[in-house]
Amino acid sequence: MGFREHLQDVCNGVDGAVACSLMGVDGIEVDTHVVPGSDLDVKSLLVEYTSVLRSARDAAEAHQAGGVSEFSVATDKLTAVARLISPEYFMVVALRPEGNAGKARFLLRVTAPKVVSEL
Amino acid sequence: MGFREHLQDVCNGVDGAVACSLMGVDGIEVDTHVVPGSDLDVKSLLVEYTSVLRSARDAAEAHQAGGVSEFSVATDKLTAVARLISPEYFMVVALRPEGNAGKARFLLRVTAPKVVSEL
Repeated sequence: MGFREHLQDVCNGVDGAVACSLMGVDGIEVDTHVVPGSDLDVKSLLVEYTSVLRSARDAAEAHQAGGVSEFSVATDKLTAVARLISPEYFMVVALRPEGNAGKARFLLRVTAPKVVSEL
Repeated sequence: MGFREHLQDVCNGVDGAVACSLMGVDGIEVDTHVVPGSDLDVKSLLVEYTSVLRSARDAAEAHQAGGVSEFSVATDKLTAVARLISPEYFMVVALRPEGNAGKARFLLRVTAPKVVSEL
């Protein structure tokens, strides 16, 4: 089972999901599954959110709060839920505001080890 | 009822909460209630997280995703849950990793209008 299938499984399991990506913390996308029909440029936005992760990591490190494990950002049109799966990679799910962010968080947690084993 | 009482009420209502702040998006703290006994410099960390909010806002605006309404960052030692309450101010709760982040999110949502009415 490749990256893409895992990303697709996460999207299929989350009500309101529009995309799921495996990204490097340097902002370079490894792979993305986009659910057809999204009107936002989700892929670019997820790449952009890498800078959010980096600023969270810098803030946490500067204050001995430990490594960042998860973060989420909700806007009027999209919620993104992300999970660090290794020091170099994170997975992120984009979903509509009314989508199930808790389920996204849960599925990222259970899918992460499977993705890590293929890195 | 002043800002401080609202911040204290949020802390009292959330299992594992260590602090609740009202902050300007420019990173200047308006008021903070810190639950006694925290070993982290929570106040400084929350100030630092303002840069996380700003980078999320920049990313969302650049991609027409609308305004940022909420964000959260979880590290090994602390979870922060934040909510924009106006274009200039946000509230943020810091809680221990095992704390109830869902309750924090809920209480921010119901407390926000009360705080806004005093701005």
